[in-house]
Amino acid sequence: MSRIAAFGEVMMRLETPGFSTLSQSGNLAYSFSGTGVNVASALARFGHETYLASTLPDNSLGEAALAYLRKLGIQTTFVNRGGRYIGMYFLERGFGIRPGKVTYTDRLGSSFNTVPRAPEDWVRIADSVDAVHLCGITLAMNELARTQIKQLARAVKSRRGTVIFDCNYRPSLWGDGGYALAAPHYREMLELADIVFMNEKDALLTLGMPSGGTDRLAQLRELIPQVAKQYGIGTIAGTHRQVNGDNTHTLTGYSYTEGAFWFAQPSTFSVYDRVGAGDAYASGIIHAALRGDAPQYAVDYATAAAVLAHTVHGDTPMAAEAEVVKAMSRTAGDVER
Amino acid sequence: MSRIAAFGEVMMRLETPGFSTLSQSGNLAYSFSGTGVNVASALARFGHETYLASTLPDNSLGEAALAYLRKLGIQTTFVNRGGRYIGMYFLERGFGIRPGKVTYTDRLGSSFNTVPRAPEDWVRIADSVDAVHLCGITLAMNELARTQIKQLARAVKSRRGTVIFDCNYRPSLWGDGGYALAAPHYREMLELADIVFMNEKDALLTLGMPSGGTDRLAQLRELIPQVAKQYGIGTIAGTHRQVNGDNTHTLTGYSYTEGAFWFAQPSTFSVYDRVGAGDAYASGIIHAALRGDAPQYAVDYATAAAVLAHTVHGDTPMAAEAEVVKAMSRTAGDVER
Amino acid sequence: MSRIAAFGEVMMRLETPGFSTLSQSGNLAYSFSGTGVNVASALARFGHETYLASTLPDNSLGEAALAYLRKLGIQTTFVNRGGRYIGMYFLERGFGIRPGKVTYTDRLGSSFNTVPRAPEDWVRIADSVDAVHLCGITLAMNELARTQIKQLARAVKSRRGTVIFDCNYRPSLWGDGGYALAAPHYREMLELADIVFMNEKDALLTLGMPSGGTDRLAQLRELIPQVAKQYGIGTIAGTHRQVNGDNTHTLTGYSYTEGAFWFAQPSTFSVYDRVGAGDAYASGIIHAALRGDAPQYAVDYATAAAVLAHTVHGDTPMAAEAEVVKAMSRTAGDVER
Amino acid sequence: MSRIAAFGEVMMRLETPGFSTLSQSGNLAYSFSGTGVNVASALARFGHETYLASTLPDNSLGEAALAYLRKLGIQTTFVNRGGRYIGMYFLERGFGIRPGKVTYTDRLGSSFNTVPRAPEDWVRIADSVDAVHLCGITLAMNELARTQIKQLARAVKSRRGTVIFDCNYRPSLWGDGGYALAAPHYREMLELADIVFMNEKDALLTLGMPSGGTDRLAQLRELIPQVAKQYGIGTIAGTHRQVNGDNTHTLTGYSYTEGAFWFAQPSTFSVYDRVGAGDAYASGIIHAALRGDAPQYAVDYATAAAVLAHTVHGDTPMAAEAEVVKAMSRTAGDVER
Amino acid sequence: MSRIAAFGEVMMRLETPGFSTLSQSGNLAYSFSGTGVNVASALARFGHETYLASTLPDNSLGEAALAYLRKLGIQTTFVNRGGRYIGMYFLERGFGIRPGKVTYTDRLGSSFNTVPRAPEDWVRIADSVDAVHLCGITLAMNELARTQIKQLARAVKSRRGTVIFDCNYRPSLWGDGGYALAAPHYREMLELADIVFMNEKDALLTLGMPSGGTDRLAQLRELIPQVAKQYGIGTIAGTHRQVNGDNTHTLTGYSYTEGAFWFAQPSTFSVYDRVGAGDAYASGIIHAALRGDAPQYAVDYATAAAVLAHTVHGDTPMAAEAEVVKAMSRTAGDVER
Amino acid sequence: MSRIAAFGEVMMRLETPGFSTLSQSGNLAYSFSGTGVNVASALARFGHETYLASTLPDNSLGEAALAYLRKLGIQTTFVNRGGRYIGMYFLERGFGIRPGKVTYTDRLGSSFNTVPRAPEDWVRIADSVDAVHLCGITLAMNELARTQIKQLARAVKSRRGTVIFDCNYRPSLWGDGGYALAAPHYREMLELADIVFMNEKDALLTLGMPSGGTDRLAQLRELIPQVAKQYGIGTIAGTHRQVNGDNTHTLTGYSYTEGAFWFAQPSTFSVYDRVGAGDAYASGIIHAALRGDAPQYAVDYATAAAVLAHTVHGDTPMAAEAEVVKAMSRTAGDVER
Repeated sequence: MSRIAAFGEVMMRLETPGFSTLSQSGNLAYSFSGTGVNVASALARFGHETYLASTLPDNSLGEAALAYLRKLGIQTTFVNRGGRYIGMYFLERGFGIRPGKVTYTDRLGSSFNTVPRAPEDWVRIADSVDAVHLCGITLAMNELARTQIKQLARAVKSRRGTVIFDCNYRPSLWGDGGYALAAPHYREMLELADIVFMNEKDALLTLGMPSGGTDRLAQLRELIPQVAKQYGIGTIAGTHRQVNGDNTHTLTGYSYTEGAFWFAQPSTFSVYDRVGAGDAYASGIIHAALRGDAPQYAVDYATAAAVLAHTVHGDTPMAAEAEVVKAMSRTAGDVER
Repeated sequence: MSRIAAFGEVMMRLETPGFSTLSQSGNLAYSFSGTGVNVASALARFGHETYLASTLPDNSLGEAALAYLRKLGIQTTFVNRGGRYIGMYFLERGFGIRPGKVTYTDRLGSSFNTVPRAPEDWVRIADSVDAVHLCGITLAMNELARTQIKQLARAVKSRRGTVIFDCNYRPSLWGDGGYALAAPHYREMLELADIVFMNEKDALLTLGMPSGGTDRLAQLRELIPQVAKQYGIGTIAGTHRQVNGDNTHTLTGYSYTEGAFWFAQPSTFSVYDRVGAGDAYASGIIHAALRGDAPQYAVDYATAAAVLAHTVHGDTPMAAEAEVVKAMSRTAGDVER
Repeated sequence: MSRIAAFGEVMMRLETPGFSTLSQSGNLAYSFSGTGVNVASALARFGHETYLASTLPDNSLGEAALAYLRKLGIQTTFVNRGGRYIGMYFLERGFGIRPGKVTYTDRLGSSFNTVPRAPEDWVRIADSVDAVHLCGITLAMNELARTQIKQLARAVKSRRGTVIFDCNYRPSLWGDGGYALAAPHYREMLELADIVFMNEKDALLTLGMPSGGTDRLAQLRELIPQVAKQYGIGTIAGTHRQVNGDNTHTLTGYSYTEGAFWFAQPSTFSVYDRVGAGDAYASGIIHAALRGDAPQYAVDYATAAAVLAHTVHGDTPMAAEAEVVKAMSRTAGDVER
Repeated sequence: MSRIAAFGEVMMRLETPGFSTLSQSGNLAYSFSGTGVNVASALARFGHETYLASTLPDNSLGEAALAYLRKLGIQTTFVNRGGRYIGMYFLERGFGIRPGKVTYTDRLGSSFNTVPRAPEDWVRIADSVDAVHLCGITLAMNELARTQIKQLARAVKSRRGTVIFDCNYRPSLWGDGGYALAAPHYREMLELADIVFMNEKDALLTLGMPSGGTDRLAQLRELIPQVAKQYGIGTIAGTHRQVNGDNTHTLTGYSYTEGAFWFAQPSTFSVYDRVGAGDAYASGIIHAALRGDAPQYAVDYATAAAVLAHTVHGDTPMAAEAEVVKAMSRTAGDVER
Repeated sequence: MSRIAAFGEVMMRLETPGFSTLSQSGNLAYSFSGTGVNVASALARFGHETYLASTLPDNSLGEAALAYLRKLGIQTTFVNRGGRYIGMYFLERGFGIRPGKVTYTDRLGSSFNTVPRAPEDWVRIADSVDAVHLCGITLAMNELARTQIKQLARAVKSRRGTVIFDCNYRPSLWGDGGYALAAPHYREMLELADIVFMNEKDALLTLGMPSGGTDRLAQLRELIPQVAKQYGIGTIAGTHRQVNGDNTHTLTGYSYTEGAFWFAQPSTFSVYDRVGAGDAYASGIIHAALRGDAPQYAVDYATAAAVLAHTVHGDTPMAAEAEVVKAMSRTAGDVER
Repeated sequence: MSRIAAFGEVMMRLETPGFSTLSQSGNLAYSFSGTGVNVASALARFGHETYLASTLPDNSLGEAALAYLRKLGIQTTFVNRGGRYIGMYFLERGFGIRPGKVTYTDRLGSSFNTVPRAPEDWVRIADSVDAVHLCGITLAMNELARTQIKQLARAVKSRRGTVIFDCNYRPSLWGDGGYALAAPHYREMLELADIVFMNEKDALLTLGMPSGGTDRLAQLRELIPQVAKQYGIGTIAGTHRQVNGDNTHTLTGYSYTEGAFWFAQPSTFSVYDRVGAGDAYASGIIHAALRGDAPQYAVDYATAAAVLAHTVHGDTPMAAEAEVVKAMSRTAGDVER
C-alpha cells in the first residue's frame, strides 16, 4: 500500500436523466469528479491511501463535494476551504448519431483556480506521500494553477517522491494556438515526471516532434522512446481508442518502460458511461508501478480497469482490485449469486 | 423564415417508465403531441414562425397542453378553448419480441372533434400564414373534422398559400372497408394540395391505382408521377422504412419534384423512440421547399431530421436546424465538450 | 365473516406529485378506486370476503385495474370485461386557500356505463353473497346504470340478502334540476334498502321533506326517523363534517337504529388525503351490523375507521380491523418499534 | 389587456428534494425565475401580453431557460442570446428552526450582466409596450446593468409609457456601505418612475429620510407620502410581512395612490413556497392600475395574488385572474370536483 | 383450466435503480418472487386457478408480500402467517463485463424455513388441487423444509394429483460436497414426480449417472431417457442456454415425453431481465401438459413463454396465454396501435 | 478537538416514500445508522476526530455501509469485516393518529453480534482515542456483545480515557422480565462510566431504586444524585420529552454535574424526523464536556443540537457546530440568502 496525493480541481457534474435534454427535463442528478478525484478514488479501491489536494468553497456546495469525496474513500486532509465557487458541468447524454453535450459554468472563477495555497502546504503534502498525480488540465487553467502544480511537483521530486503526470491536453481549454502556449509548460512538467500518460498525438502536436510514421502505431513506436529518453521518464503509458459503429469501443493499452513496449490485447466492449475511463487506465498503471508488477501485468490490469470504468455510471472508477483481477480473465458477464 | 399553421388534434401521451407495463407500474410521464404539434414544433426549431390550429378544453388538462405547446415554441393564437375532453393514449414500451402497446381513450369525444369553429376562423388563419399543414388522421375522425380540414385548405388555397397534406392513412381509425370510405376525401385533399407526403401504398390502396411493379420501389417509381400529374401536385415525398433484426431501422427518403425522383442514401441507425419520425421527415421537406433548397439537399436534410427524431424521447422532434445540418455529415456520435 | 358484493364503477385516479399542477408537472401517479372499490377493500381488511361487481375494458388499462383490485384483496369473479374505456379523474392537490382540482374524462362512455350485463349475472351474484353495497353515484349515470342497480338490489332482496345503499348525491353529476330527476330513483332504492347512508341534506333536498329544524342536528333528529319509518329501513347512518381553519377536520358520526340515535364523540384530526373517508365510515357501520355489534360500538368503530382513512394516501381505506380497534382508544401517534 | 415588458436577469433555480441538504441528496429539480420573469408570468396569467427583456447564453442552458419562459406564457422576442453563463442559485429548504439556505454561483459573470445591448434595442422595446417593469436587484449588479436599466426607463418614459420600479433592496448584493452606494441610483430611478414598490425601510435606509415614527406603520404613513410628492410618483405600494411561530405568515398590503392610503385586511396563511410572493403582489397592483381599478380593489386583489403565490411550488406565481378573484372571497380550501 | 398449487418460499427482491451499485445509490425497488411465485403467477396468466403454499411473517413485510401475490393473480388461501422474517436478496444489475451481484439476507431464519405446518394442511391442499409444483431450492434449505416438501408430494400423489418437480440445483445453497448430500433427497422426489424439469447436468452431477456423451446434447439424449425409465416419470423437460457475446442469449427447449425427444427451434433474443425465465419455461410445459397439448406445441409454447420472460422487468413472468401464442409466430416487435 | 470512538452496530434503514405503507409502495430509500453512528457523525460535525468500532459483512451491503459512514465523516479504521449479515429495519412513517411502524430483520445474526474481535483490537482502539461511547442497546444483544462492550470499556478506563455510556434501555429488546436481566450489566457499565445518559426511569426500572417523588421531575431530582454518588459518575445527563397534540414536541434537557443540576429552557418545535434526536443531545453534552464548557452552556448547546436533529431527514444528526450555536439564539427560521 502506498500513499498518493492527486492534485486537481473538483467539478460538480449535473446530468439530466436518461437521454433527455435540458429543455425537456426538470431534474438533474449531481456528483463530483475531476481527474484527480477519479485517480484518487480508483487507487483507494486498489488498496492505497489516497489524498486529494484541492480547494473548495466554504458553503453548502463545498460541503457536499467533501462528503462525496469521503464517500469515495479519499482522504480530504489536503482539501483547503476558500473562494466562492465550484466549477460545474451539465451533461446531456446523446443517443446514436445525436451527440451528448457538455455545458460548463465559469471554471476560471472556481475556488481551485483563484485561491492560492501557502507554500508550506506543498511541503506538508510532499512529506506525507510516496507519489503525486498531476494533470495537464490544471496546466490549462491560469497562471496561479500552473505555478502551483509546478511547486508541488518540485516539492515531491526534491523529497524523492514519484511524480506522475497525465498530459491530458484539452484543445477547447487552450483555444487557438494553444499548442504553442502549452508546450513550455508541458516540457517543464515532463522534466519533473517519473511516470507520464500520453500518446503519439501529444508528442506530435504539443511537443512539436516530427515523425515519419504513416499510422498511429508507427508514430507511437517512433516518438515515445524519444520522449522517454529526452526527459528521462521511466514509464510512459496510454491507450488507443476506436469508436465502433455498433455502440462498442475498442481499447488498446500500451506501456513503454524499461526501454521496451508492452501492449495489452485490444479489448472491445459495450459502453455505458465513458467519462473517466482514461483515469482508470492511468490508475491501473500507477498501481502496478507502485507495487513493482511486471510491465505486461500492468497493461493488462490497467486495460481491465479501463474497460470496467466504461460499465459504471459516473466519471469515477468504482472497481476494487479484486474485481479488476477477475475481469482480466472474464469475457461474458452473468449474475453472480 | 415562413409562417406556417398546422391543423390537428393535440393528444395527451401517458407513458409508463422504462419497459414496465400498466399492471406493473404506478407512475406515468405525460406530454402532448399529435402530427400537427410535431410538424409545428420541428419547423419552429428550423427557424419558422409556426402556429397550431386546434381546440382544447377549458380545464386544467387544456392549460397543461397549452403550456406544453408554448414550451415547444409553437404560437397558440389559433388554439380555441371549448368542449370537455382531450384525446389520450397510454404507451407501454416493448422490448425485443414483446411489442409495445398503445391504448386510446375516446378520441371522437375530444374538444377537437366535437367543437365547430366559426367560419371566419379559417379566414383569419389563412390570412396570417404562408402555408398550412394538414393530415389524413383528421380525415379519419368524423364529419365535423372532415368539413373543417377542407374549409381551411380552401381558405389557404384561395389566398395562394401553400397547402401541405400528409396522407397518413391509419387502418385502425378507418376500420374495415376503410379505403373505400377514405378515397373520396383523400382525392379532394390531393386536388387542393401543393406538397403531399405519401408512398406507393397510398396510391395502391387508398386511391386504388393499379401497378405492374413487382417491388415497393418499382411501384413507387410508377405510381407517384401519375399522382403528381393527375392532381397537379408540385412535390410528393415520403420514406421507406425497414425494421432490422438488431434493434436498428433503415430509412430511405425520397422526393418527386420538378418531374424527377430524388433519393437520400439509406440510413441505418439505433432507435430510441420512433414515434414522430415521419413528421420530422415531412418537416425537413417543408423547410427545404419553403426556402427553395435544391431537391437533393431537401431529401438529405429531411432524412437527417428523421434519423435524429428517432434518438429523442417523446413524439416531438427536438433538433434545431444547425443540429440537423451537422447530422447530415456525421456518422458516429461522441460527447461534445 | 360475511360475503359482500359492492356494485359500482372503477375509476382511474391520476395525480400530480406533491402540490404541483398539471401545467407544472410531467408525472402522474395512478391508482384505481370508486365507492364500491373502497367499501369492498375496507371490508376485506375487516375480515370479510368481498367482491366487486363491475365492468372493465379488455385492454391494458382494464388489466391494470384488475391487478390493483386483487392487490386490495377484492375478489374479481364478478368483474366483467367489455366496452372500451375506463372512467378517469385527474387530481391536483391544493394547499391552504388554493383549492385542489379534479378533472374528469368522459365517464358516461366507460365500460361500466355502456355494457349491459346478462340478467343471470344478477342472480349469480345474489346467490353468492350475504349483502350488496350500492351507491347513489351509479344512479346518476344513465338509464342502463339505473336499470342494473335496481335489478341487482331486487335480486338480493328476493333472496333475503341485505341491501345497503349509500345516497351519495353528487350535484355536479345530476346537473341543474337534479334533485327532481333523482328523487324517484332514490325513493325506489330506499324501498329496497336495509341499511342506508345519508344525512339531513338528502332528506331535505333529494327527498324534498320539510323540516322545522334550525340547525343541522335538529333537522337530522327530525327527519331521519321519518325516513326510517316511511321506507322501513333498519339502520340509517352518516357523518357531519366540519372543515376547520387549521388544516384539521372535525367528524361526528351517527347511526339511527333500533328506533334510537347513537352518536360518536366528535373527532378532530389532521388531514392527509380526505377522499374515501366517507366510504370508510360506511364500511365500519356495515362491518358492525353484519357482526351484530352494539350500535354505540358501531359508530365508534366507524368513526375510527373514517379518521384513519384521512391519514392514508389514496382513495381507498387501508386499515385492518385490529388497527381500527387500536385507533378507537388512541390519541397521539408515535413510531411503533 | 396591456403590453408590458419586464427587464431583468433570468436565474436558474436548483433545488434539493423535500427538506434534504446538498450533502444528503444527489438530485436537483431546476426551473428558471427572477423578478422580471415572475412579474411577466403573473401578468400573462392576468390576461396581458408580456415580454421579458433579458440576455441568455447561446447554449443548452439558455435553450432550456427560453423554453421555460415560453411555457410560462412570456413572449421571448426581446431576449437576446450571447455571453457564456446563466446565474444560478441552489436552494435547500429549511424546516422549523433549521433555516433554508441559498447558495449562488457567480452572478456578475452572467450573460445578462456582461453583454451590452444595442441602443436601438431600448427603442424597439419602448415602442412595443405600454409599460415596463424594472427592479432594484438589477441596480445592484454592475455599471453595465445600471446603465441599461436607466436607458430603458428613459426610452419608455420619453414615449409616455408607464415606468414601474420595484426597490427590492438586497443588502447582500450591495455589501457593507451599500445604502450610500445605492442611494443616487435609486433616486434616479424614482425620478423616472410612475409606479413604485417599496416600504418605510427603503425610505429610511436607502433614501436616508428621517422619521419620528415609533413603529413601522407610523413610519410608513409619514414617509411614503413624502416620497410620492418629492419624486412625483402616482402610486407607491408594498406589504408588511410578519413571520408567525406556527409556520404561518401574516401579510398586510398597502397602496398610496391619489394622495391617500389604502390597506387590505391582514391575511394569515400557511406557507408552502414563499419565494416570489412579493412579485405576485406587485403584479396585482400593476394589473389593477393598468385596468383602472379602484385602489381598494387593487390592494385586495394584489393581496390575494400574493397569498396564492405562497401556496405554489417555485418562485413564479401561477394563478390566473379568475383564481385570484375567487381567492379574494374564499377562506377555506376544499377539493373542487 | 386446472387448479395448481406451488409450494415454495416467497423472497423479497430489492434492486438498485438502473445499473448503479449499492454504494452509489440510495434507493431500492422491491417486489416479491420465488420459483413457486413465478410458476403460480405464470399459470394464472395462462388461465389456471393457482395457489401458493408458503408461510409469511405476521408483520408489514408479510402484508406487502401477500398484497403482491394477490396482484399477480395468485390465490393466497394456503399462505400461513407466522415466524418473524422474510428472506431477501439485493440485486445490483451488471453491465457488459461487469457482472450483476446478488446479496442474500439470512434465508434459513425465514418464516418459510422455520415454522412447521400442521399435517392436515397438506391434506387440505392436496384435496383442493389437480397438481402441485415443487422445487429443488426448497430441498436445499433445512430438514423442516425437506420434510414438508415430501409430505406435500405424498399427499398429492396419494390423491392421484400430478406431482411436478423442478430440480433447480443451486451449488451455493448446498455448499461443498453438496451433490452427495442432495442425491438421496432428489431421488426421493423423482420417485414421486410425474413431470420433472432438469437437464443432463442434474443427471451427471446430482444423480451421479455416468455418460459416454462428448457434448451436452449427446449426454442429454443418453441420460434423460434413463432417468425417465428408472423413476417412472412421464415428462422430463428443460432448456439449454447459451450466453452470446452481444448481450443476447440463445435458448433451446426440449421435452422427453411419450418415449421421445421433442425440441424447439433455438431462439436468440436480447435480454432485459433474465431471472425467472426458467420458471416461465416450466410453466409453459405444465400448461400444455395439463391441457393435453401435443409435445411439439408444448416445447414451442414453453420456449416462447421463456423468451417473453426475458423481456419483462422482475423475476415473475407476466405474459398472458394469448401473448405467448402471438409470440410463437412473431419475429420483430413493433408498437401495437 | 478530541478523538472519540463509538462502539455499536450499524443498521440499514429502509424507508417507504412519504407516508405510504409497505403494501402501497414499491420503493425504499436506504441509509445506515445506529446510536454509535449517530454520535460519531454528530461529533465529527462538531470538529472532533471520530471513529466507529463495529463489524460489517464483506459484501455489497457492507461496502455500501462503509461508504455511507465515510460520507458522514466517520473514520472507519476500526470497522472489521466479517460475518454475513447487516441488521436492517423497515420504516413506514405514520400520520396523525396512524402510528409509524418499524419492522426489523434478524438483528442477532448480524456481523456485529456474531463475529468476535481479537482482544488486541480493544487495546488498539483504547490507545488511539480520548473517549469511547457505549450504548445500552449493545448490552441487550447477546453474550458476545456484552462481553465485548465491557472489554472495550475496561481497556479505555485502564488507559485513563473517558468512558461514556448511554443507558438507552429498549423494552422490546430485553423482553418480559428484562429489567431484572439487564440490571447487573447496567450496574457493571455504570461502575466503569464517567459520563452517563439516563433519566429517572432508568433509575426506577432498571436499577430498581425506590423514589418518593410524585412526578418525573421530583423523581429525577431525587434519584440522579444518588446514582452519581453510588457509581462515582462525573456527569449524568438526559432529556424529558413531551409529545403535544399539534405535531410538536417539547424537550427539556438536563445535566447533573459538579454536584448540581443544570436545566435548559424547555423547547417546543415541529418534528420532521425524530429518530436520532437523543443521540444529538448526547453528542452535544459530550462535545461540551470534552471542551470543558460550562454546564449551562452544555445543556443549552445539547438542546439546540437535539432540536435541530428533529428537522433533518434520517437518523443521523447533520448540524455543524456553527449551526448549533446559531440555533441556540434563534427562534423562527427563514431562508438565508
